[in-house]
Amino acid sequence: MRPLSSLLLAGLLAGTFTAHAQTAPAGPLADSLNIRRIFDEALLRGQCYDNLRYLTGTIGGRLSGSAQAQQAVEWGQRTMEKAGFDKVYLQEVLVPHWVRGPKERGEIIGNKGKRIAAAVCALGGSVGTNGKIRAGVVEVHGLDELKSLPDAAVKGKFVFFNRPFDDALIEPGVAYGVAGDQRRSGPAEAGRRGAVGALVRSLTSARDDNPHTGATRYEPGAPQVPGAALSTLAADRLSLLLKADPTLQFELEMGCQTLPDVKSYNVVGEIRGSKFPQEIITVGGHLDSWDLAQGAHDDGTGVTQSMEALRLLRAAGLQPERTVRAVLFMNEENGTRGGTEYARLALANHETHVAAIESDGGGFTPRGFVVQGGPDVMRKIAAWGPLLRPYHAADLAPGHAGTDIEPLEAAVHPKALIGYDCDSQRYFDIHHTAADTFDKVNRRELELGAGSMAALVYLLAKYGL
Amino acid sequence: MRPLSSLLLAGLLAGTFTAHAQTAPAGPLADSLNIRRIFDEALLRGQCYDNLRYLTGTIGGRLSGSAQAQQAVEWGQRTMEKAGFDKVYLQEVLVPHWVRGPKERGEIIGNKGKRIAAAVCALGGSVGTNGKIRAGVVEVHGLDELKSLPDAAVKGKFVFFNRPFDDALIEPGVAYGVAGDQRRSGPAEAGRRGAVGALVRSLTSARDDNPHTGATRYEPGAPQVPGAALSTLAADRLSLLLKADPTLQFELEMGCQTLPDVKSYNVVGEIRGSKFPQEIITVGGHLDSWDLAQGAHDDGTGVTQSMEALRLLRAAGLQPERTVRAVLFMNEENGTRGGTEYARLALANHETHVAAIESDGGGFTPRGFVVQGGPDVMRKIAAWGPLLRPYHAADLAPGHAGTDIEPLEAAVHPKALIGYDCDSQRYFDIHHTAADTFDKVNRRELELGAGSMAALVYLLAKYGL
Repeated sequence: MRPLSSLLLAGLLAGTFTAHAQTAPAGPLADSLNIRRIFDEALLRGQCYDNLRYLTGTIGGRLSGSAQAQQAVEWGQRTMEKAGFDKVYLQEVLVPHWVRGPKERGEIIGNKGKRIAAAVCALGGSVGTNGKIRAGVVEVHGLDELKSLPDAAVKGKFVFFNRPFDDALIEPGVAYGVAGDQRRSGPAEAGRRGAVGALVRSLTSARDDNPHTGATRYEPGAPQVPGAALSTLAADRLSLLLKADPTLQFELEMGCQTLPDVKSYNVVGEIRGSKFPQEIITVGGHLDSWDLAQGAHDDGTGVTQSMEALRLLRAAGLQPERTVRAVLFMNEENGTRGGTEYARLALANHETHVAAIESDGGGFTPRGFVVQGGPDVMRKIAAWGPLLRPYHAADLAPGHAGTDIEPLEAAVHPKALIGYDCDSQRYFDIHHTAADTFDKVNRRELELGAGSMAALVYLLAKYGL
Repeated sequence: MRPLSSLLLAGLLAGTFTAHAQTAPAGPLADSLNIRRIFDEALLRGQCYDNLRYLTGTIGGRLSGSAQAQQAVEWGQRTMEKAGFDKVYLQEVLVPHWVRGPKERGEIIGNKGKRIAAAVCALGGSVGTNGKIRAGVVEVHGLDELKSLPDAAVKGKFVFFNRPFDDALIEPGVAYGVAGDQRRSGPAEAGRRGAVGALVRSLTSARDDNPHTGATRYEPGAPQVPGAALSTLAADRLSLLLKADPTLQFELEMGCQTLPDVKSYNVVGEIRGSKFPQEIITVGGHLDSWDLAQGAHDDGTGVTQSMEALRLLRAAGLQPERTVRAVLFMNEENGTRGGTEYARLALANHETHVAAIESDGGGFTPRGFVVQGGPDVMRKIAAWGPLLRPYHAADLAPGHAGTDIEPLEAAVHPKALIGYDCDSQRYFDIHHTAADTFDKVNRRELELGAGSMAALVYLLAKYGL
């Protein structure tokens, strides 16, 4: 049981103070009360969860270029217009259009012809198999090990990248970064070495039969061979069988292909700053998702929290002094075209960007924020810690803020890029799989995240950096 | 993406340092390395999750006095004996034996006789209905409102306690404490006022059809009437229908009863301190659970984490200097007989207790610890913060430590009672319901909790308080 102090504070605030009270307190007390009001709105009248239910349940997965991605654009625009933001508009952007085709098939074939099904899915951006490919398998545990193999060991085979997550790491995101090169570059490297394809262990600590998709990239002009993700159980089984029979074969069938680029959009909603309208604070997530599931934690939560952050300010009666923008970025997963275009327009329009926040690490319980910025900026944000601590959102650390806001850095040099940081132990269990669905999102966790983001936006809009 | 610093540290530690290295570092660096070793063991070779799978899946729900509770006692003893602790023993204790009987039935009956099923379950300790009870309903929002009603409004009716969780509170545990009196004392108060029974809104923010059980208490010699929990959806529906038709009736059927007390046990496992064996550190959870589900988060996680804390010390090669005890308490849910007996024996045996830790708030991602202790003790524990911060287990706050260790306070005055504190936003969605099952527990979250508890036990055993 928690101590009752937070209860007393809540009682103190309930109904005793309104946005236009004549004797409104100033400074830290006013900020504390205003942030409490933001969280009251989020927890008692939040719209985030219902918005997410619609985006994930009614629209569903929304890979760049798909009909669902277009529906999501229209929904985002409609939802922000209904919320009454000062300005809602689209930013046109051409996006890649990769399609998965029919459900992929993978089989392990023993030397007596026995077939064992293996759960596979195409990596995003992969070429298809053009029928079936059947070949031997060579197992490696990373790109370096592949480099060390003679050509004869690789040529005409599948390269099976079986590097597991390092479970000793406390942050699963770090394990993802470390093991992730085999997915991002494995098929390209395998192709360069004369392999017929790449089989990549799913990037997760979970042991189950969900393959995890995700982008893979070929080098221009280099050979392109198919890349598939294996579920961790399939990878474990394949590895075990290979030890017993190094001559076994794998058969892969994938109908994926890349179609011509498609016109799509970022969706932007704005509340104009009352004192410094030229100074902009961006808060965003990405509207596209992988196609296998509903894109709930990746990144429906970030999208709905970003829109909610602006709505919470307005509903709590807090007019921002600087301009705040909710941006639903298109195409984070396989191209970052939306983030790149947002930055290009910011530069072309000579915009001044104070800071940008991205939520793209799931919609779990808040922990705080990771910040890319100088020491002065870190100190300034750290000084707001006591205001965020009652909501367990005060942890600050340097770290990668977000893929979509990254291009802003070179374009318009915001003082800080900030990533919403939440508990991430469950995130990579479902990341890029069919299991990333609405039911994995907890209403209160989502709302506390939206409140935390809104609180930081409020402080940035009031004080700048 | 997290910064890579934790990765570098992990690399630094991997394989370069063993428990018996001749040039072992001392002080904070040694502690940091030893705690890292504890977490490596927890995350790479943890046994907690498999133990929990057995306790929840093979044994299942284990209400005091049940056959499953006895199986859990035997399992706990066997598991700690296999783990090779220095001493494993039972502490006999008489426990209440309440049984639920056949599945309860509840129906709302309109004035034209239309019946609508309402999801109900008996509150633990309630008397049965002896057939069916059919009566009108009076809705209140707390014990105070019941007090304010005239006898005529209550007599012969069901009192419907419909106070919801206060969702504005950041800690659901506080909301539970505030709304919980209607469950604990509602039926007793209703009976005293001449009602035929009490219907209590489930103690949760979740809107679903799972009724939440939990203990209710009658006053000695006072009238005893049945108390049932309504799911939140059933409570919302009943409230709505009552507004339209205040004369509607409710029909309740429950076959629960209290049988004679049964002999049961606490299970205790010990590693003897190498320097100060007379000084004891207890770490525990409760072995009993409600009968509706598997008792996974309440409190299978606390039980398995407590045993794991001792095993981690041993597996990491860390011999504690003070005696450490894992205690699986019997009967937390409806009597605290185990906790009371443990304290009685501690006093009778003139034991010196340095500190006791309890994990009974779910097995979610660590946040830190709540502490009942003086300012000196708080300062001392707070000084260990930097050692726990890499694992996000450094938050300290005053707070209620745990029901089972509470009786130690008056008996032997330990310097601190400590509660393992973890993210609790999901806990009351499933607490005391049929949904408190193994699949709600995340392996890494559980293991990080066990590691955090073991790290604190290690520090307490080394430095005392």
